[in-house]
Amino acid sequence: MKIKVGINGFGTIGKRAAWAVSKQDDMELVGVTKTRPSFEALMAIDQGFPLYAACQDDVAGFEKAGMKTAGTLDDLLTKVDIIVDTTPGGVAEGYKSKYEAAGVKGIFQGGEDHSLTGISFNAMANYHESWGAKFSRVVSCNTTGLCRTLYPIDKEIGVSRVIASLIRRGADPGDRKGSMLNAIEPSLKLPTHHGPDVQTIMPWMNIQTMAVVTPTTLMHVHCIAVDLKRKTTEDEVVSIWQLTPRVRLVRGKDGIKSTGQVMELSRDMGNPRGDMMEIVVWKDGIKVVDDHLYYYQAIHQESDVVPEIVDCIRSMTKLEQDPLRSIAKTNKALGLSK
Amino acid sequence: MKIKVGINGFGTIGKRAAWAVSKQDDMELVGVTKTRPSFEALMAIDQGFPLYAACQDDVAGFEKAGMKTAGTLDDLLTKVDIIVDTTPGGVAEGYKSKYEAAGVKGIFQGGEDHSLTGISFNAMANYHESWGAKFSRVVSCNTTGLCRTLYPIDKEIGVSRVIASLIRRGADPGDRKGSMLNAIEPSLKLPTHHGPDVQTIMPWMNIQTMAVVTPTTLMHVHCIAVDLKRKTTEDEVVSIWQLTPRVRLVRGKDGIKSTGQVMELSRDMGNPRGDMMEIVVWKDGIKVVDDHLYYYQAIHQESDVVPEIVDCIRSMTKLEQDPLRSIAKTNKALGLSK
Amino acid sequence: MKIKVGINGFGTIGKRAAWAVSKQDDMELVGVTKTRPSFEALMAIDQGFPLYAACQDDVAGFEKAGMKTAGTLDDLLTKVDIIVDTTPGGVAEGYKSKYEAAGVKGIFQGGEDHSLTGISFNAMANYHESWGAKFSRVVSCNTTGLCRTLYPIDKEIGVSRVIASLIRRGADPGDRKGSMLNAIEPSLKLPTHHGPDVQTIMPWMNIQTMAVVTPTTLMHVHCIAVDLKRKTTEDEVVSIWQLTPRVRLVRGKDGIKSTGQVMELSRDMGNPRGDMMEIVVWKDGIKVVDDHLYYYQAIHQESDVVPEIVDCIRSMTKLEQDPLRSIAKTNKALGLSK
Amino acid sequence: MKIKVGINGFGTIGKRAAWAVSKQDDMELVGVTKTRPSFEALMAIDQGFPLYAACQDDVAGFEKAGMKTAGTLDDLLTKVDIIVDTTPGGVAEGYKSKYEAAGVKGIFQGGEDHSLTGISFNAMANYHESWGAKFSRVVSCNTTGLCRTLYPIDKEIGVSRVIASLIRRGADPGDRKGSMLNAIEPSLKLPTHHGPDVQTIMPWMNIQTMAVVTPTTLMHVHCIAVDLKRKTTEDEVVSIWQLTPRVRLVRGKDGIKSTGQVMELSRDMGNPRGDMMEIVVWKDGIKVVDDHLYYYQAIHQESDVVPEIVDCIRSMTKLEQDPLRSIAKTNKALGLSK
Repeated sequence: MKIKVGINGFGTIGKRAAWAVSKQDDMELVGVTKTRPSFEALMAIDQGFPLYAACQDDVAGFEKAGMKTAGTLDDLLTKVDIIVDTTPGGVAEGYKSKYEAAGVKGIFQGGEDHSLTGISFNAMANYHESWGAKFSRVVSCNTTGLCRTLYPIDKEIGVSRVIASLIRRGADPGDRKGSMLNAIEPSLKLPTHHGPDVQTIMPWMNIQTMAVVTPTTLMHVHCIAVDLKRKTTEDEVVSIWQLTPRVRLVRGKDGIKSTGQVMELSRDMGNPRGDMMEIVVWKDGIKVVDDHLYYYQAIHQESDVVPEIVDCIRSMTKLEQDPLRSIAKTNKALGLSK
Repeated sequence: MKIKVGINGFGTIGKRAAWAVSKQDDMELVGVTKTRPSFEALMAIDQGFPLYAACQDDVAGFEKAGMKTAGTLDDLLTKVDIIVDTTPGGVAEGYKSKYEAAGVKGIFQGGEDHSLTGISFNAMANYHESWGAKFSRVVSCNTTGLCRTLYPIDKEIGVSRVIASLIRRGADPGDRKGSMLNAIEPSLKLPTHHGPDVQTIMPWMNIQTMAVVTPTTLMHVHCIAVDLKRKTTEDEVVSIWQLTPRVRLVRGKDGIKSTGQVMELSRDMGNPRGDMMEIVVWKDGIKVVDDHLYYYQAIHQESDVVPEIVDCIRSMTKLEQDPLRSIAKTNKALGLSK
Repeated sequence: MKIKVGINGFGTIGKRAAWAVSKQDDMELVGVTKTRPSFEALMAIDQGFPLYAACQDDVAGFEKAGMKTAGTLDDLLTKVDIIVDTTPGGVAEGYKSKYEAAGVKGIFQGGEDHSLTGISFNAMANYHESWGAKFSRVVSCNTTGLCRTLYPIDKEIGVSRVIASLIRRGADPGDRKGSMLNAIEPSLKLPTHHGPDVQTIMPWMNIQTMAVVTPTTLMHVHCIAVDLKRKTTEDEVVSIWQLTPRVRLVRGKDGIKSTGQVMELSRDMGNPRGDMMEIVVWKDGIKVVDDHLYYYQAIHQESDVVPEIVDCIRSMTKLEQDPLRSIAKTNKALGLSK
Repeated sequence: MKIKVGINGFGTIGKRAAWAVSKQDDMELVGVTKTRPSFEALMAIDQGFPLYAACQDDVAGFEKAGMKTAGTLDDLLTKVDIIVDTTPGGVAEGYKSKYEAAGVKGIFQGGEDHSLTGISFNAMANYHESWGAKFSRVVSCNTTGLCRTLYPIDKEIGVSRVIASLIRRGADPGDRKGSMLNAIEPSLKLPTHHGPDVQTIMPWMNIQTMAVVTPTTLMHVHCIAVDLKRKTTEDEVVSIWQLTPRVRLVRGKDGIKSTGQVMELSRDMGNPRGDMMEIVVWKDGIKVVDDHLYYYQAIHQESDVVPEIVDCIRSMTKLEQDPLRSIAKTNKALGLSK
């Protein structure tokens, strides 16, 4: 029997999560919610995703626009085992009690605090912590990216300290509002939330993060300096990441010199929506000096957490005990090579 | 028997043309050329497109990168009926004599002058002019956009004069070089080439164009003012474009307010590469006052000419006499709704 | 005796208006208001402009930040003959009654509707309409730009119709919020307000405007097509604008090809804040065909209205009857060459 | 007697250096060179800077444009004691032998390698190394910024290690060419040149740098993590920088949250060209944890080296022995507060 999944909030992450769930043979996408009859709601219908109004007050808007809804979130909650909450940051707390009352498990996103759930999720690093949990939180795109590349380095070589500068995109490509058009804005409150967020997954990790926002829409880029517990080589680091799921090595010398070309690669690969769910590390940007490692990685903020959401569902609903098997199953269904 | 097609230049347009040709049941994609072993060359191989070096000197580069080529452009020319020249602007003249010597028909792009071929092409407006031609030119993305929406208005209502301002994107998303980062640059040489270019398709059209370049990568936008030969209504104009192939009406009130949301729509629709091969007209941006029509349209510079290339092949190789049947056949193969 | 002037709102326009008024020998800057103790408030104090809190509630904020205020707007209104309202768009209506009650004249900005005052102002085109008026409105930066170049052409040659496309900047350089980062957004509601706004100055002008917003901060650019009442030449048009106050001709062939270089020129000229209060017309972008004129102009949205505000004060307070003498006086005080 | 100074190359740095030299009472600006009669050449003439053609071949161009030159670089070299070479990166080597042959001292810019001169310059950190030197090099804008803030911390507290990520602007505001419009591009070759460049000034400094380029024009921003030789507090760090010349502390809570507002501040301060010659450190972005210091700084790439050039002239020509007196003298002449 398939696990019945609902998506609350059909925005940037929600629409991708809906697609991803719909591709899994052990899950059934029961429906998605939306507050307004925008073109994105039309797209949900076009893709055959049952559309629910977020609340009763929203129904009239859909009707006026000639869109039939299958009910409201309350109705959806009666039909699902688990709900993926992809509502905008800050409103999740209110929803949590609703899910609880309906006896439905819930997955929140990295925009929410760890304290909301007490459990955070990354498939490789702590799959089992969400095992059977009522609520869990898939960490943000940036934190997911940091976990994906740091966890295997820590496991194989040992990490004693990480200093990472996050160069954030200012808005998503379709966002109406964004950062300043022609400026760089530092995140003055230090440490930024990303370091502590990594520690919700790997509490032992000594990591400090700084961040700036820049006027670009495609991807975040991280500049990462790692102090290791022993000497290593660039070859060893490369060979570790070559085996790491959801990490892709690219090279500037192949013409992939910026996030612009990474996205071009994604489009050329035929990825749905031109997404890049893997963390992209520049192979010719890796530098090792004794026990110090420096590298750059690019994070596709719209999509990298999507396969993590699928794996989190499996852990929470006890569909699959082995993280590597869940990862492999998800990857295959979503067209990821490893 | 299928028409054998080669693509000379596997860049922004070339890779899309290759894909489009490969989807036609009356055409066979024999091969594509590339000068360097970049990631785009790898993608050609991944998609199963036979890869040819542009010239003998380029072969070594591919071999060094471990990519096997099927030969050079000269070899490719012995195997095809027609070549789509998607080389960068300005070098086509040299290639033309090569194609001629090989007895191969050739389609050039809008970056080249009309004088190179003496015939320019738009599927709706002048399909028959390229009938059986040795060489033709598919006009540029902007000119294609102007022809797509102006031709049916001229045919149904009559156009006496057009003034269009073209707000151009500064570079394609994956381009390494582009316009100034934070400036608007007018095209001082007036008239810009776009008006005369429309007249290579519709010589009777009275059209003046101005243009500026802006720091964005997604699409061009046109502000178009049309003096008509008679009074009309917004409803009549809408009903004309609703029937026009490769024109899509969108609405700001559905949340599609900018080129950013148009591209989001394309991605949500599942279009390959997130492309929008249709010309997008804002329905709620159409204004008619007596015999004056004002409208905005958005042009996806990377892809709108792609279906035109396919139709141009059919006209030049006499595969299909009826433009509307060629258009319908192309559209179906490429997933365009009309 | 000098006219006593207050500035309500020390933002982008307000701080420039304060500076401009302080430079006039027939005016006295009595004070400026601000709502919060930001760095701009500090700059007001640094320049010796008496600082008033916008209202009593704001006083505490300044005190907490260690900034002494000279009182509130209400206090300021008891000391001035005229107030320049440079508050954000939309709140002016409420202030108007306050000014009226205090028996103080008021100048509003182009962000407000013409109906607020019933009189709009451009120094060259309708200086006398504000003569002795209680309230007037200096039209917006874009409308000011259109009036500056169209009025003399209309007067000398005669204008029968104007079609203008306005390519707007998305935000000012220091604005925290702005347009989309990588998109072009058309102003769908047609006609845009700019055409009717020109008609508040020149009611006889037949003008239609369209507009798009682009992700740049420096200047707006207009693409303007003018039908004239008789044939002309590029030379005649140039000679008209060479004599027109606050219009500057530049050339692409001197390296001024975009708004980026126009702003570089302003900085090189030593203009305060690097402003360009003149409307910039590209001389080598002017094209005349018989009785049709096409041209591009750039508008510095932060500053072009500033000298108009000064002239408007003179007209409303009957300081100077001759518009050309007021313009010359203002220009000299502000360092404008003509 | 005043030291006679020439400027070779009147571009972004050259025009500022010319202005700065012209403000010093112990220096005389003899002339500046330019290759083409652009608007910048006109501005040189407007400011009364004698204009020299870079070489004989360039003279005709100026004459054709109606600009009189005072001769060529060769003529200029016969009249000066020292030349500031602000030619574009990479051509300086050829000029060096020319200067040497003319018996003229030369200052090169950070775009050139340290090996060109064997001496690099920062006023606070190593003023005496250029004492009487024939050739010296003022390090790049980024390196100057790193030296300005790190040198006093190292001197007062002791620095054991620095990891800095440089978020670079993609082009200057008036540059015709720049970085990608909508992408982040990492500098893959590690370490970037900035770390070793700091070591040409402070060889004992243990510093690693990474860098990315972003699509903005205003300033660079650095994210800096410093391991100190002893514990400190944020207050101590602030008090050190408060006393450090050419370092300005700003606060996000005053509304200065990004490089956009830093530049707005510069314009509001009335700085020539709106420049910010000081390194800007966000006071509320300084974080100290035991013996670890984290901070953000912004670098105005167009101007921060300008006062250093003036001081370098004084050191090389033995005008002033005490660095602090030279710095104070320069600052006063240029309007810098400390």
